[in-house]
Amino acid sequence: MLPRGRSRALAAAALLLGLLLLAGLFLLAGDPRAEDAGGSCCRPMQPEPQDGRPSGPAAREGALRPPRCQLLHVAIVCAGLNSSREVVTLVKSMLFYRKNPLHLHLVTDAVAQSILETLFRTWMVPALGVSFYDADQLKPHISWIPNKHYSGLYGLMKLVLPGVLPPGLAQVIVLDTDVTLASDIAELWALFAYFSDKQVIGLVENQSDWYLGNLWKNHRPWPALGRGFNTGVILLWLDRLRQVGWEQMWQLTARRELLTQPATSLADQDIFNAVIKEHPGLVQPLPCVWNVQLSDHTLAERCYLEAADLKVIHWNSPKKLRVKIKHAEFFRNLYLTFLGYDGNLLRRELFGCPSQSPAGAEQLQQSLAQLDEEDACFEFRQQQLTVHRVHITFLPHEPPPPRPHDVTLVAQLSMDRLQMLEALCRHWLGPMSLALYLTDAEAQQFLRFVEASPVLSARQDVAYHVVYREGPLYPVNQLRNVALAQALTPYVFLSDIDFLPAYSLYDYLRASIEQLGLGGLRKAALVVPAFETPRYRFSFPKSKAELLALLDAGALYTFRYHEWPQGHAATDYARWREAQAPYRVQWAADYEPYVVVPRDCPRYDPRFVGFGWNKVAHIVELDAQDYELLVLPEAFTIHLPHAPSLDISRFRSSPDYRACLQALKEEFHQDLSRRYGAAALKYLTALQQRPRNSA
Amino acid sequence: MLPRGRSRALAAAALLLGLLLLAGLFLLAGDPRAEDAGGSCCRPMQPEPQDGRPSGPAAREGALRPPRCQLLHVAIVCAGLNSSREVVTLVKSMLFYRKNPLHLHLVTDAVAQSILETLFRTWMVPALGVSFYDADQLKPHISWIPNKHYSGLYGLMKLVLPGVLPPGLAQVIVLDTDVTLASDIAELWALFAYFSDKQVIGLVENQSDWYLGNLWKNHRPWPALGRGFNTGVILLWLDRLRQVGWEQMWQLTARRELLTQPATSLADQDIFNAVIKEHPGLVQPLPCVWNVQLSDHTLAERCYLEAADLKVIHWNSPKKLRVKIKHAEFFRNLYLTFLGYDGNLLRRELFGCPSQSPAGAEQLQQSLAQLDEEDACFEFRQQQLTVHRVHITFLPHEPPPPRPHDVTLVAQLSMDRLQMLEALCRHWLGPMSLALYLTDAEAQQFLRFVEASPVLSARQDVAYHVVYREGPLYPVNQLRNVALAQALTPYVFLSDIDFLPAYSLYDYLRASIEQLGLGGLRKAALVVPAFETPRYRFSFPKSKAELLALLDAGALYTFRYHEWPQGHAATDYARWREAQAPYRVQWAADYEPYVVVPRDCPRYDPRFVGFGWNKVAHIVELDAQDYELLVLPEAFTIHLPHAPSLDISRFRSSPDYRACLQALKEEFHQDLSRRYGAAALKYLTALQQRPRNSA
Repeated sequence: MLPRGRSRALAAAALLLGLLLLAGLFLLAGDPRAEDAGGSCCRPMQPEPQDGRPSGPAAREGALRPPRCQLLHVAIVCAGLNSSREVVTLVKSMLFYRKNPLHLHLVTDAVAQSILETLFRTWMVPALGVSFYDADQLKPHISWIPNKHYSGLYGLMKLVLPGVLPPGLAQVIVLDTDVTLASDIAELWALFAYFSDKQVIGLVENQSDWYLGNLWKNHRPWPALGRGFNTGVILLWLDRLRQVGWEQMWQLTARRELLTQPATSLADQDIFNAVIKEHPGLVQPLPCVWNVQLSDHTLAERCYLEAADLKVIHWNSPKKLRVKIKHAEFFRNLYLTFLGYDGNLLRRELFGCPSQSPAGAEQLQQSLAQLDEEDACFEFRQQQLTVHRVHITFLPHEPPPPRPHDVTLVAQLSMDRLQMLEALCRHWLGPMSLALYLTDAEAQQFLRFVEASPVLSARQDVAYHVVYREGPLYPVNQLRNVALAQALTPYVFLSDIDFLPAYSLYDYLRASIEQLGLGGLRKAALVVPAFETPRYRFSFPKSKAELLALLDAGALYTFRYHEWPQGHAATDYARWREAQAPYRVQWAADYEPYVVVPRDCPRYDPRFVGFGWNKVAHIVELDAQDYELLVLPEAFTIHLPHAPSLDISRFRSSPDYRACLQALKEEFHQDLSRRYGAAALKYLTALQQRPRNSA
Repeated sequence: MLPRGRSRALAAAALLLGLLLLAGLFLLAGDPRAEDAGGSCCRPMQPEPQDGRPSGPAAREGALRPPRCQLLHVAIVCAGLNSSREVVTLVKSMLFYRKNPLHLHLVTDAVAQSILETLFRTWMVPALGVSFYDADQLKPHISWIPNKHYSGLYGLMKLVLPGVLPPGLAQVIVLDTDVTLASDIAELWALFAYFSDKQVIGLVENQSDWYLGNLWKNHRPWPALGRGFNTGVILLWLDRLRQVGWEQMWQLTARRELLTQPATSLADQDIFNAVIKEHPGLVQPLPCVWNVQLSDHTLAERCYLEAADLKVIHWNSPKKLRVKIKHAEFFRNLYLTFLGYDGNLLRRELFGCPSQSPAGAEQLQQSLAQLDEEDACFEFRQQQLTVHRVHITFLPHEPPPPRPHDVTLVAQLSMDRLQMLEALCRHWLGPMSLALYLTDAEAQQFLRFVEASPVLSARQDVAYHVVYREGPLYPVNQLRNVALAQALTPYVFLSDIDFLPAYSLYDYLRASIEQLGLGGLRKAALVVPAFETPRYRFSFPKSKAELLALLDAGALYTFRYHEWPQGHAATDYARWREAQAPYRVQWAADYEPYVVVPRDCPRYDPRFVGFGWNKVAHIVELDAQDYELLVLPEAFTIHLPHAPSLDISRFRSSPDYRACLQALKEEFHQDLSRRYGAAALKYLTALQQRPRNSA
């Protein structure tokens, strides 16, 4: 150990000496902006401090940061299904590097809001606030501006943010959905410190020659200072903008330019640049690394080859990741890092920054803390409590038109059943609501799978809801509930992914619902009899007659006839053979038919995870709520063989798993008794008469 | 825009003023180390500058960095299969944040070296050098030290690094395999600047009370300064260590302490601390964030709750990720980030730093650049050129003892066939070499799958080789070649993962190889006749007689009898029924039997990716090299049904895919003619007589 006081004094002296030298170098260095426009474009640039704060290398390295726990605000305009999916990658990159509490201000249409509200509610990221602003209400403010840019009307909405965001909000960072962060956003926020008193907006210079106006004959872009500025990343000093009358300012400029321009070509960016051309004192130019623009013919290389560090990447070509530029692979890798990044890992706390927990997080922590790790069912109970991140309508989807007897097929799957989707689409011509249990990386594989399939991409009436994987057991009933909650028709067919329904089933169900007056006077569940084929290659029966012939030939069986006959025995297949009209059957122990019910039917019990008893409990619930069970005489669905799921293998080999399932069943029956009283006694009796470890 | 010269001068003045203030604060602030030992432990600490370099907040934020392209050196001791897998996560975290060229100095045993050499060669990370040092040669230097730590002898090897690393190497960072970086390692390297002339080693204080010696009655740890230092992260100033006679110094101390201590408890750490206790001037204490220690009873919370930023996390409990500490979830998330991180994304270049390309990288770039994107087979050719990262012997494995007629089953699979492994282990009791095509995240799922399976974890003779996914097509033949290259027995059974061999096959093959004198005088491929069952649930035949009975009953077929009879017709199943002895068959077009061959057989042609013709081409190659084809009369293997792979679905639906396969076949035949001359004519003739787009 060294003597302390003396070395400290020496160090301080040395520090000052060093900094004097640095400051001298800084004064002596030529100003890069003194070069001509062509030479200086897109080089890493050091903003000049305007308020007495230190500059030089220390500042460039981001040493000037906002106070540790300061809340930073970020605004994003995000409309439509695809943008609401794409913005997630931006948000992930931001959360990965951030060390400050963040508040997102999302200007969304109804579709994006519904998706993102669900996503953020289930994501439960600590120290992250989210507010939504209705984009449709903003349209009148900008719809008078003709615009040719691919972003459409939403591309113009950044102009009106000062009027839309809360009056108390002084500063905000505005990002396009197609940017990826490669550093802590607090470093960007720190650049507000470099604004002079008059500056209200921070922007990076454009890294293309667009605004120079010489790209083609008669190319006449909107006015701009030199190459102009890119608006994919903006620092907005909101209260100053309000003070200088921003709204009138930009409208005036836009109206004047539109006298000679037919429309904006680059949406808001044209108008921002025209205003800046007129009032250059408003803009604080930002270092190029904060908006590395990867469009065609980009000049970004001048920036990133010299910079030690890239901060924000901007995919501002309509081709996005497919843009053909030098070093594309490098930038794509950064993007793919966050595209496939497990968003669950971003649920980490910010140490030392007191912040409100996400809604429900504390209760969840308590429940998890109360679990007994020595309990044999610990994993089950933990899985049941897990809040999965949910991304509803992950892919483009058109809701079915409202029809009084329409039915949505509801099912759930993981990656290993993806190849069932095409066949299912051929068999079921109506709407579907499917929950997919995937990792973030698998969700991208799934996206590519659908895009590559003509059958799947042609179907706009299939809604895919991604439930992100977490924990060792398959949360089958939570998945079913997600898919069920998103069904938009009055009726649902509660199916499983390895079943193919009769080709006629969709039409037949709608006709049956109408004829039986289901949902009106009758509270009923329509039973679709289930069969199975042990063979892979298999000619699907076109009719009940063909099905019966296959059954007689031993090419088909009733479902799980060999392993678990009680699951479907109550359907009474013998009666079904002859039936001409729907017939009523009684509940029986372990009965688990596939049924059609009104959308507001009871939810599945989420305590059943993995394999076993997940549907049985649901049928018990229907019976307890007095649903009539009506078997449809012409309906059928057939199970295709597949390799056993890992959960089933585990169930078969583990006595613990079976013991645990038994415990869960008993708890389920206790809850039943509590809710239905004496009426639930029959279920308990039935259970006790079957002390086997039945599935 | 603002006037330039004036604002620049003002800025410099302001900068100086600000820094004077900062320096003043620095001088006035109390020295945190003046507090008592208990109070100061594990708080974020600012090292004192010793050579006139600036300190204060700017330095703490890492503003002092090594020059942009300076090569940084990192040494890691890594021995055994598990360490060689675990170190990859450390390396990924390091590569993720690094912006400098790096050189890794790996002290490895033979097993780890073989694994890591393959991994780094195929990883092809730009600006990353790797050197290996033989740990076994170092053992004599340290094996005299009795050691109780779980790391064993390898735990002591950090002591001898100054003598082992190249004499020209002046400084090195030494890391344990169980650390994870959460920041750029250059910031750690920058701390060398704070060393005084006398300091030779930089360490973070221990974040536990171990060395205070009061953990239990008669707990008598090795001597240390206060809490002592942790050696999971070390800055070693190598040339100074050599100058001060480090080797004698630590040996002297160790020998002296071992007079009263029975052994080291914490391996090298005890000895480092004992030396430092004696020579406190040698150590430069580093800020706690550079080694946040997550052992039981850790005091790390004092560090990370105050620090703005964690730099290195150290899993220094024997329980590793399962350690029970507060905030464990937070740290686990950081670790899991890199555990599942796609290592392919780390192949990105370092812009602006000239560095040698990895071996083969330039040639690969050229070949890829020469591909024509308009070529219908572009994807095929790109996939074929792809160098996949390969992690051989991913899990614990014991090589089979050398036996002259032993056979290894060779196959490949991806995640969707994992559930085949247990059955395969029951059917094949000999060694296996399996290539798995996985993402980094899937590799971890696979690891957990094996650990959870008693059948799989009991088998030490199955070697799993992970080939990391990249590109859209399944590189079936590259995978086969990886598995084949790693087979350690003189013979290999070239199988596919969806086949289960007869229970007796392993014994029968070894006996047949011996009887037939295979590999010695005879150059032969032994054909194992292939069958298929269309049924999932299926009672596997115990003998040839049982198999024939099932065949006659229509419960089995010869393999692909309905879709692709020519694939196996040449096996002559009619003759096989009656055969009592091996019989020779002739090559025929499209023949693709499963064969047993010497390990040095021809490799598979990697141009065939996805589905189709991948085995056919290999059999052609065997025939061209004059392998006799001998059918074994008692051998059989049976294909189990499974859902079609995505590649097959694609093949079936895409005319482009088929056209492309045809083109590849033709190119294969051109190559054959080049290599075998007129002898190859028969293959071309056969191909031309079958102009169909056959698989």
